[in-house]
Amino acid sequence: MLKSKFQTTELIEVLTKGIGVYETLRTYNDKPFAVKEHYNRLCKSLSYLKIDPPSFKEFENLVYENLSERIRIVYAYSNKLVSYVFRETAEDMNAGYIKIDFTNVRRADPWSIPPDLKSLGRPDIYLARLTKGDNYDVIMLGNKGQVCEGTFSNVFIIKQRKIITPSLESGILDGITRMYVMNFLKEKGYTIEERFVEPYELFECDEVFLTHTSRGIVPVNQIGDIQTRSYELSKKLSEEFEGYIKCLL
Amino acid sequence: MLKSKFQTTELIEVLTKGIGVYETLRTYNDKPFAVKEHYNRLCKSLSYLKIDPPSFKEFENLVYENLSERIRIVYAYSNKLVSYVFRETAEDMNAGYIKIDFTNVRRADPWSIPPDLKSLGRPDIYLARLTKGDNYDVIMLGNKGQVCEGTFSNVFIIKQRKIITPSLESGILDGITRMYVMNFLKEKGYTIEERFVEPYELFECDEVFLTHTSRGIVPVNQIGDIQTRSYELSKKLSEEFEGYIKCLL
Amino acid sequence: MLKSKFQTTELIEVLTKGIGVYETLRTYNDKPFAVKEHYNRLCKSLSYLKIDPPSFKEFENLVYENLSERIRIVYAYSNKLVSYVFRETAEDMNAGYIKIDFTNVRRADPWSIPPDLKSLGRPDIYLARLTKGDNYDVIMLGNKGQVCEGTFSNVFIIKQRKIITPSLESGILDGITRMYVMNFLKEKGYTIEERFVEPYELFECDEVFLTHTSRGIVPVNQIGDIQTRSYELSKKLSEEFEGYIKCLL
Amino acid sequence: MLKSKFQTTELIEVLTKGIGVYETLRTYNDKPFAVKEHYNRLCKSLSYLKIDPPSFKEFENLVYENLSERIRIVYAYSNKLVSYVFRETAEDMNAGYIKIDFTNVRRADPWSIPPDLKSLGRPDIYLARLTKGDNYDVIMLGNKGQVCEGTFSNVFIIKQRKIITPSLESGILDGITRMYVMNFLKEKGYTIEERFVEPYELFECDEVFLTHTSRGIVPVNQIGDIQTRSYELSKKLSEEFEGYIKCLL
Repeated sequence: MLKSKFQTTELIEVLTKGIGVYETLRTYNDKPFAVKEHYNRLCKSLSYLKIDPPSFKEFENLVYENLSERIRIVYAYSNKLVSYVFRETAEDMNAGYIKIDFTNVRRADPWSIPPDLKSLGRPDIYLARLTKGDNYDVIMLGNKGQVCEGTFSNVFIIKQRKIITPSLESGILDGITRMYVMNFLKEKGYTIEERFVEPYELFECDEVFLTHTSRGIVPVNQIGDIQTRSYELSKKLSEEFEGYIKCLL
Repeated sequence: MLKSKFQTTELIEVLTKGIGVYETLRTYNDKPFAVKEHYNRLCKSLSYLKIDPPSFKEFENLVYENLSERIRIVYAYSNKLVSYVFRETAEDMNAGYIKIDFTNVRRADPWSIPPDLKSLGRPDIYLARLTKGDNYDVIMLGNKGQVCEGTFSNVFIIKQRKIITPSLESGILDGITRMYVMNFLKEKGYTIEERFVEPYELFECDEVFLTHTSRGIVPVNQIGDIQTRSYELSKKLSEEFEGYIKCLL
Repeated sequence: MLKSKFQTTELIEVLTKGIGVYETLRTYNDKPFAVKEHYNRLCKSLSYLKIDPPSFKEFENLVYENLSERIRIVYAYSNKLVSYVFRETAEDMNAGYIKIDFTNVRRADPWSIPPDLKSLGRPDIYLARLTKGDNYDVIMLGNKGQVCEGTFSNVFIIKQRKIITPSLESGILDGITRMYVMNFLKEKGYTIEERFVEPYELFECDEVFLTHTSRGIVPVNQIGDIQTRSYELSKKLSEEFEGYIKCLL
Repeated sequence: MLKSKFQTTELIEVLTKGIGVYETLRTYNDKPFAVKEHYNRLCKSLSYLKIDPPSFKEFENLVYENLSERIRIVYAYSNKLVSYVFRETAEDMNAGYIKIDFTNVRRADPWSIPPDLKSLGRPDIYLARLTKGDNYDVIMLGNKGQVCEGTFSNVFIIKQRKIITPSLESGILDGITRMYVMNFLKEKGYTIEERFVEPYELFECDEVFLTHTSRGIVPVNQIGDIQTRSYELSKKLSEEFEGYIKCLL
């Protein structure tokens, strides 16, 4: 389902010769979630590209005129800025059993592509997705081998009740759900460590969970062919987080 | 000028959700140049993406049906492969005086994006172009600071009649003009060194030239605010290369 | 136990102002093992430092005049080359249960220090050793996070009867025992893969073993706090390798 | 000229099996300069190695008992800490014309060796010195190609009256003279930028100078085979800094 005020031929030229950035929003009970945060992140993406952003009003209108389970808003630019909106259903990724793995495709270095430039057609992320196989998501490492993030999710580990996640300096996208999850955990009294995380720490810990817009907190059951030790706390946190988010709306 | 056998709405979805690769060909005297080499490189790009390539016949037809000074062929993929062709004029970049500079945007690491995956909307290259200012092109370094290439050109330096250019292992695109230039230089009896090149070598050498599809060999007069020592040999080679290419057709 | 033809004050100046390289040899039944290979590697170390090596005869004499379970030969240089020999006992590292872990100290990059320059007082290796705790050895990663080697051992993994070990290009020392083990395994009909190894592969494989001069093949029972799946094949290979080495003498 | 309270054989074992750190101090008019700063840096070096430092009193005594133009204090450790002092003359490096160049040997990465661990026999620095030829010093780059420092000096550039020098985050030693020079320049009203510096900036600037303990500020006349545009301001600053330092004693 497409909607645009612009000529399609125009968009084709723009997408082929220029560059596109995007944001994907969730709605809960027909209310869009974190519109302002998504707008701010879009502005950040556009600022790297030296493109003047739309006004917040304009962005908000696009969201409300296209309410759906997931709303994907694309801005493409080549001399002029054009917008496109995709109304999407929130695919049910509710696989009971979550298996992830590492991918050999590395996330592009921040010196090459700022981690919070959310642009269309990023080849590193596309190539990583091709290696997914039957995994829910695959974890990308950074240029020094540090854990970065999944192709659409952020990673957390639980180690002796401390909760550890790659810092922004690791070269990751400043995930909006990641931030809400960290606020939620802090309110619950957990200690959060944002720092460089080594891949082997995912094996040498108690639990692993992912976070992403569509599903909040996702407990991980298996990494490669190794089962995680537990996922009980992650499961409990996942349920509590659902309630927490709904209260915020 | 667009031409496509496909629905435009289709292409929009494809470009927004999928990925696009492309090749740009030159014609000389209405004959397209190096069609087979461009086809092979396109196949290489698609193979990284695990997409079946079109047949050579199909590619060749697209070229011949769209003859123009420059022909830009785009293949976009998201579940299906669609093609798009742009007929372009060869902009006259015949600036008498060529100034280049280094950019602080680094080329994405080969572990992240294969250097010979020629995809649309690569943010590193887009960001580098934004720093061009009044330069003809800017030189991107790799993740170790080695010289890679310009945003649309390859770099060569002349040092005591030896001709030196970054090796493919430096993380550069396997430029088709680069290859023709190297063959030409070898035939002329020059010694070519393909190796890691440090940025300061561009200052500590005799001459610097760029190569790219549209203009062949381009002598460089200035790097940053430093004039090159000479450009006489580059200028001579540039003229001889024009003749060399025309003989190949 | 020290032995030297040189003044000690001289050596102090040399070690303080210059640089030292070394080799450590084993004897089996009073016969020194792989003298020529150790000599060649010493010459390689010295060649990086642009120091003329001693003759093979001289090196061999030092070995035979100092026969002991382990012979450590140091060459130090600052204007002149002086040698020093330590006669050592082969410490019994025959811990029944072998636990290893990863260290956060990275091995110096080959662009900084050639991996086969075996010099005294390398701070990266010294710092890694400080993190050993109760581990038999700790595994150092390279500058991209790839598995390199232990502080005194090389690493191998067994995955579906294929035997995999970091390639020299990973930035490792060309271990003499590593080479003998690979020859031995090839003779036994195993497939050996020398390539970049990711840290998580040590968890997602069947067995892990180390190799080093003093003990040959050492099966690993535990990595961090995770037990390896098996160590049966490694144990069998370890015993067979003992016999193989003795036959070579 | 050596002086030690310890057995020489002991030190030989220590230097061969352990690790050594050092500091080199200058005296002006028979007064040692920056003793406390050197002591603090020594403590930093030892703390990386988990070695308890000597007391400040003990360090100070070593300095005063060995007063000379340059005092080199070595602490070596292998089970026990032993000290050694070399009394040196300040070699006259007053070459009228200062030529420097870049070296292809990269400084070890901070993930491998902390930049402020000042240890004996660092192979990267030793190898870099081997490439010096007739240069006063050679500039080492870091693992991303950023400018770090010389093998015994720090680098500054002057660009439109702003003074720029690699930040500590570039992976450099926290030079004591570097710090005094920056304080001096700030007091004189100059703007100092500490940041990542690219090698080509040494060519695209007005002046370049080095700083090191023995000579303070050293104006650079030539980089590789390119003369610097000017060295007038550096020369003036060099003279003023001499006076500034003497006032501090």
